[in-house]
Amino acid sequence: AVNGSRLWQSLMDMAQVGATPKGGVCRLALTDIDKEGRDLFVRWCEEAGCTVSVDRMGNIFARRAGRDDTLPPIIMGSHLDSQPTGGKYDGVYGVLAGLEVVRSLNDLGYVTEAPVEVAVWTNEEGSRFAPAMVSSGVFAGVFDLDYGLSRADLDGRTMGEELARIGYAGELPVGGRKVGAYFEAHIEQGPILEAEGKTIGVVTDCQGQRWYEITFTGQEAHAGPTPMTRRKDALLGAARVVDAVNRIGLKYGPFACATVGLMQIHPNSRNVIPGRVFFTVDFRHPDDSILAAMDGELRAAVAEIADGIGLDSDFQQIWYYAPIRFDADCVAAVRQGVERTGHSFRDIVSGAGHDACYLSKVAPTAMVFIPCIDGISHNEIEETTPEWVTAGCEVLLHAVLERANA
Amino acid sequence: AVNGSRLWQSLMDMAQVGATPKGGVCRLALTDIDKEGRDLFVRWCEEAGCTVSVDRMGNIFARRAGRDDTLPPIIMGSHLDSQPTGGKYDGVYGVLAGLEVVRSLNDLGYVTEAPVEVAVWTNEEGSRFAPAMVSSGVFAGVFDLDYGLSRADLDGRTMGEELARIGYAGELPVGGRKVGAYFEAHIEQGPILEAEGKTIGVVTDCQGQRWYEITFTGQEAHAGPTPMTRRKDALLGAARVVDAVNRIGLKYGPFACATVGLMQIHPNSRNVIPGRVFFTVDFRHPDDSILAAMDGELRAAVAEIADGIGLDSDFQQIWYYAPIRFDADCVAAVRQGVERTGHSFRDIVSGAGHDACYLSKVAPTAMVFIPCIDGISHNEIEETTPEWVTAGCEVLLHAVLERANA
Ligand SMILES: NC(=O)NCCC(=O)O
Ligand SMILES: NC(=O)NCCC(=O)O
Repeated sequence: AVNGSRLWQSLMDMAQVGATPKGGVCRLALTDIDKEGRDLFVRWCEEAGCTVSVDRMGNIFARRAGRDDTLPPIIMGSHLDSQPTGGKYDGVYGVLAGLEVVRSLNDLGYVTEAPVEVAVWTNEEGSRFAPAMVSSGVFAGVFDLDYGLSRADLDGRTMGEELARIGYAGELPVGGRKVGAYFEAHIEQGPILEAEGKTIGVVTDCQGQRWYEITFTGQEAHAGPTPMTRRKDALLGAARVVDAVNRIGLKYGPFACATVGLMQIHPNSRNVIPGRVFFTVDFRHPDDSILAAMDGELRAAVAEIADGIGLDSDFQQIWYYAPIRFDADCVAAVRQGVERTGHSFRDIVSGAGHDACYLSKVAPTAMVFIPCIDGISHNEIEETTPEWVTAGCEVLLHAVLERANA
Repeated sequence: AVNGSRLWQSLMDMAQVGATPKGGVCRLALTDIDKEGRDLFVRWCEEAGCTVSVDRMGNIFARRAGRDDTLPPIIMGSHLDSQPTGGKYDGVYGVLAGLEVVRSLNDLGYVTEAPVEVAVWTNEEGSRFAPAMVSSGVFAGVFDLDYGLSRADLDGRTMGEELARIGYAGELPVGGRKVGAYFEAHIEQGPILEAEGKTIGVVTDCQGQRWYEITFTGQEAHAGPTPMTRRKDALLGAARVVDAVNRIGLKYGPFACATVGLMQIHPNSRNVIPGRVFFTVDFRHPDDSILAAMDGELRAAVAEIADGIGLDSDFQQIWYYAPIRFDADCVAAVRQGVERTGHSFRDIVSGAGHDACYLSKVAPTAMVFIPCIDGISHNEIEETTPEWVTAGCEVLLHAVLERANA
């Protein structure tokens, strides 16, 4: 029912935009490369007969009219931005699987009752601008527009400025319209489906998440003549927190995840005791009460470590969302799609955050996962197979039809 | 005998070149700012009637002729480059105290037997280009010229390229000439003199030093769906080494120093498990056998930590020099200078490395320390007093006269 080789080819074509030597992509949100990827997507959508519009957060909507175009649309989508050393499928798959559904409907001359849209959400990764999923969050009313536009990268450039610069500061208000249902296809980004030999993950839940920013300030001093006992080494403090974060993750395992991914050392010179370190913590758990316990342990560990070295500590939780349960009817539509197409499947909890998490606040929502090789994502070697890619798109098509004709 | 207020004013004038908002300087080796500082020094020396020459490592020599100009020169000097967030005195003091000795001799119309030179050594700090003291090292024959010119910063630019770019790739061969004696004045950069109320440190020895570069390679993966037990987190490994380095420093205290000052995390994104971390270790001890024991413990710790997480490890000792004892006669000349000027003093071991360490390989060498406030250096708040600055210069003058007329 869908054209798997066309979809695969589109994935490979998009992967050229920001391609890295190791086979991945670097398409950070709102860079020139991101604009190039957006432009390509818009061109493909227009070629497929869609009407394209852009909202003030730069979210793109490509619309295929329904028989009754006044009905709320069924939206498919995900994101085109990537990590600095990201893969070819994370996000892109959900966007281009949506486009392939549109193209397949065109091939069949099939008109759905409700209109169908393909959405690209701005800055899902949260790598250049924190937090993640910020523009689907504005769409869902979780963040207000000013908050979204004022997110700044580490060099101080804001999303608002960068949207204007690349020509994607649209006119459309962000959200505030009725959505019939939202479906997002995505690679799993974890090892479960592949390990169990299942082709489709029917995503029932997403883990909750807490992000932190911590700055330790000690005192810069000379690495040679400064006795060990007189030091206020901010990096020593940060290092101990990295270890504590790992301990907390292991303690609340097997479902807890705890990561320090970003650290900036000041002045970062070999023979200077670091005077200031900025770093982040990423906590996840499917159970909100455990996520809260992890939070408590982190706060205690940071305070104790800072105190032990004599560091000043600035501690901010900058992002939190509780675990999310997707809409039972939409999940059922996905499961029905799997049964119709005959692929193997299992129910699964998403370890990553997705735009679907925020869409679920304002629309019946569900997700379709396909496996990725060795469970590796956020890595240039991220890989999946044409068969899985096709299977997930077939399931997406069936779920969308189910809802668009309901 | 010396003009303390002129010396202080010159220190303040030089501190304008690369001044930072917090009262320090950023004058990294071979940047445009470093060129500006060099140009100012050269102008001052020419105004003082010196003949200025530059060698192929960019070392500058300002020469005041002696009665017998065929005698080997007595050289005073230090460096003008700074840390990224450095102070106004580190290095600059030794250079400008040398210039003040020349200016004072001019005021007195005094001609020394041997010629007197003021030297500026290129890239003493080792911050932009590692290791430290590289150009005095080439002068002393510890490093060869190719090694010196090929030192690269973290962006891959070499000292050779940067010397040419700023116009300080001189024609003079590096070293290979007889030096009568070398004297370097410097702030202590540690807390001892101030704590004991002494104005002058007669430096008898310098600690030995070992510098390391370590790269841990694990696997980038998504911070959400990647179970704790499947991770190869390169930052977790680096963090544990930071803690181990601190433990080693404390274990071999009170004289051991052990520091991780520089760390680069890849890809440095909040929701990506770090796949690669590059970091440095700086070890110091006045006893070479203890420095060797620290080295052994570091190697064992790094291997064990990498193994425990499953990281690949690249471990390089990139710099080593054994503890240094200065020339007894030159030290005696300094001590005599202190006695003549009547300042309080104590013998002291230098915790920092200095160009004098390498000069001591090819010339009778000694150093004069003055206190700095709270022992703080490699920090924008580095401070000393006009009285100490003057006292150290007086001692330098006497030590130089003693040798230049011997
Ligand atoms: N799917 C995905 O990689 N999202 C990025 C946000 C997160 O870290 O969960
Ligand atoms: N004096 C000084 O700061 N030297 C830099 C080299 C070192 O780290 O010892």
